[in-house]
Amino acid sequence: MSDASPLARELIFGDQHDRIQQRLAALDPDLAAYIRDFAYDTVYQRPGLDLKTKELLACALLTSLGAEKELKTHLRGALRAGASETEVREALLFMAPYLGFPRVVAAFSQLQDLLEKRKAASE
Amino acid sequence: MSDASPLARELIFGDQHDRIQQRLAALDPDLAAYIRDFAYDTVYQRPGLDLKTKELLACALLTSLGAEKELKTHLRGALRAGASETEVREALLFMAPYLGFPRVVAAFSQLQDLLEKRKAASE
Amino acid sequence: MSDASPLARELIFGDQHDRIQQRLAALDPDLAAYIRDFAYDTVYQRPGLDLKTKELLACALLTSLGAEKELKTHLRGALRAGASETEVREALLFMAPYLGFPRVVAAFSQLQDLLEKRKAASE
Amino acid sequence: MSDASPLARELIFGDQHDRIQQRLAALDPDLAAYIRDFAYDTVYQRPGLDLKTKELLACALLTSLGAEKELKTHLRGALRAGASETEVREALLFMAPYLGFPRVVAAFSQLQDLLEKRKAASE
Amino acid sequence: MSDASPLARELIFGDQHDRIQQRLAALDPDLAAYIRDFAYDTVYQRPGLDLKTKELLACALLTSLGAEKELKTHLRGALRAGASETEVREALLFMAPYLGFPRVVAAFSQLQDLLEKRKAASE
Amino acid sequence: MSDASPLARELIFGDQHDRIQQRLAALDPDLAAYIRDFAYDTVYQRPGLDLKTKELLACALLTSLGAEKELKTHLRGALRAGASETEVREALLFMAPYLGFPRVVAAFSQLQDLLEKRKAASE
Repeated sequence: MSDASPLARELIFGDQHDRIQQRLAALDPDLAAYIRDFAYDTVYQRPGLDLKTKELLACALLTSLGAEKELKTHLRGALRAGASETEVREALLFMAPYLGFPRVVAAFSQLQDLLEKRKAASE
Repeated sequence: MSDASPLARELIFGDQHDRIQQRLAALDPDLAAYIRDFAYDTVYQRPGLDLKTKELLACALLTSLGAEKELKTHLRGALRAGASETEVREALLFMAPYLGFPRVVAAFSQLQDLLEKRKAASE
Repeated sequence: MSDASPLARELIFGDQHDRIQQRLAALDPDLAAYIRDFAYDTVYQRPGLDLKTKELLACALLTSLGAEKELKTHLRGALRAGASETEVREALLFMAPYLGFPRVVAAFSQLQDLLEKRKAASE
Repeated sequence: MSDASPLARELIFGDQHDRIQQRLAALDPDLAAYIRDFAYDTVYQRPGLDLKTKELLACALLTSLGAEKELKTHLRGALRAGASETEVREALLFMAPYLGFPRVVAAFSQLQDLLEKRKAASE
Repeated sequence: MSDASPLARELIFGDQHDRIQQRLAALDPDLAAYIRDFAYDTVYQRPGLDLKTKELLACALLTSLGAEKELKTHLRGALRAGASETEVREALLFMAPYLGFPRVVAAFSQLQDLLEKRKAASE
Repeated sequence: MSDASPLARELIFGDQHDRIQQRLAALDPDLAAYIRDFAYDTVYQRPGLDLKTKELLACALLTSLGAEKELKTHLRGALRAGASETEVREALLFMAPYLGFPRVVAAFSQLQDLLEKRKAASE
C-alpha cells in the first residue's frame, strides 16, 4: 500500500482508528489481524468503487444483519467517507421495501444516537 | 411524477418492465400495486441517491437475504442503471467480509447466469 | 390423545399425511419421530389457539425463514384448517411491512403454485 | 377512513399512540409517514383478518427477526387487540418447532418484561 | 436416564443449573419443560457425539442466530464440557469465512465478558 | 504450508478439489482466490481443532444460513474428514432445538441426496 494516501480504515474511522483496532485486539489478536488485513487492507482497498459507496453498502449489510453496534461504526464511516446526512437517511429509507420496517427503525435509532453524540461533542 | 422523465422502474427493468409487472399481478393484484406504488413510485423515486447506488444497495440487501431470483433482477437493474460489470463484481466482493462467502458465492452464480444469458442473446 | 377427534397433523395434511410422514422417515427416522411427537402431537395439539390461527402463524414463520417448500405444505395446511384463500392472501400481504417485499413475493409464488395444482387436480 | 371507527394503530397502541408516533418522527419524519400511511393505514386497515390475528402474526414475524423492542410493542398490541395472555403464550410456544428455542426464549423475556410493567402500573 | 451419570444439562450448566431452570420456568413453565425434556434430556442425551463437540456446535448456531445471551451460556458450556479457551477461540475464528466478521466480533465480545467474569470470580 | 501434508481443502474436497476451484474461478477469479487463500489456506489450516470438528461446524453454519448447495459440499467434506454417517446425522439432529425443524429437514434432504449419489456411484 502507498505511503502517500491514507488507508480506507484510516479514512472511515478517523480519530477512532486506534481505539477500534485495540478493542478488536483485546477480543482476539488473530481476529483483529484478519479484519485489518483481509477486510480492510485487502477488500476495502480494492479500486472500482469509491469509499462512500462502500460504506453505504456496509450500512445496508449491517442493517440487514441487525448488527446494531457495527452499524453505528459504519454510519459514522459513511459520513466520514463523504456521504451527507441526507444521503445516509436516503440509504436507510431505501431499505424499507427490501427488509421491512423493523430493521430500518433499528438503523435510524443508531443514526439518531450517533448524531446526538456528534452534536453534544461539538457544543 | 413527471411526464418527461422515465420512472426508476422503467429504467431498471427496461423491456422486461411489463412482463415483471404482469408476473406480480398474477401472484396478487394488491401485492403488485403495493410494490409499484410504494416500493418503486414512492421510495425509488426519492431524490438524493442516484439510481446506480440504489441498485447496488438493492443487490446488497438481496444477497444478504439470500433472495436469489430477485437478486438476478436487480443485478440486471444495476447494469441497466449504469453500473459497469466491474462495479457490480466489486460490490459483490465487498460483501464477503460482512456476510461470509456462501452468500457471495450464491450471488456470483446469479451474476454468471445473467451474463451468460445476455451473451447468448447478443449472439 | 383422544381416539375420537382427528389429530392436528391429520387435519392439516389430509390425504398427504402418510406420504409426508414417509418422506420424513426416509430422511431420518429419529427426525421424523421428533417432528411427529414433539412438533405435531405435543405443540400442535395444545388447546388455546385454533388450528387455522396456528397454520397462519406457521406460514408467517416459514415466509420469514425463506423455507419455501415447507411453506407450501403449510399454505395447504392453512386452507385445509379452514382459512379461505382470501385469508391466506391477507396474511401474506400483512407480512410486507415486517419482512419487506422479496420474502412476500416468494411466498405468493408458492401459493400460486399450490392453487394451480389444486385447480389442475379438480379438472 | 371512517370518522366513526378507530384506526388499527389507535386500537393497538392505545394511550401510547402519540408517543410512538413522535418517537418515529424524531428518528425520521419520512420514515414515520411511511410506517403510518403504508404499514398502518393501508396494510393494517385491510379487512379480511381480525386485528387479534394480525397482531399474533406480527409477534411471529418479530420473534423470527429477533427484533425484540418492536416485539414488545406488538405483544402489547396483541393483548390490546383482544388476545388473552394465554393466547399470546400459546402463540409463542407454537413457534418453538419452527424457529428453535433461542428466539422463543427471547420473546418470552419481552413478554415477562411487559407483564411486570403492567402489574407495577396497576398497583 | 441413568442414575449414575450426570445429565448433559448438569454438566454444561454446573452450579448455574438450577438458576437457569428457574429463570426459564419464570418465563413460562411449559417452555421450561420443553427445553428440559426435549432439547436437553432427549436431543442432548443422544450418544454419537461427545458433549464438547455438541457445545461447539451450539456456539456456532447461536453465533449465526445472533443470540448473544444464549451464546454466552453455551460458551461457558463449551468450556465446562472440556473445550479449552483456545479451542473455543478457534471455533469462533473458524466461523468468519462462513458468517462474516460482524457476527464473529459479537461472539468474541460475549467470550470476553465471560472470561472477565470468571477471572474476577477467581480473584 | 508443508510440502508433506495435504491441505485441508485437498482432504475435504478430494477428487472434486479442482472442479470446485474451477467453478469458483469461473464465477470470479478474485473471489476464488479469497476463498482459497483466506478461508481455506489461512483459517482452515489453523491448528487447534481437528478437521472433522471444523467440517461439522461448517455444516451447522450452512444449515443455519439455509445455504443448501454449499451445505452438501461440506456434508461430503465432513464424511471425507472422518465423520461417520451417524456422526453427521447426530450433528444435524442436534440442530433442531436451536434452529427449528425446517432448516434441519432441508439439511437432511441434502444429506439424502449426497448418500444416494454415493451409493449410485459405488454400484
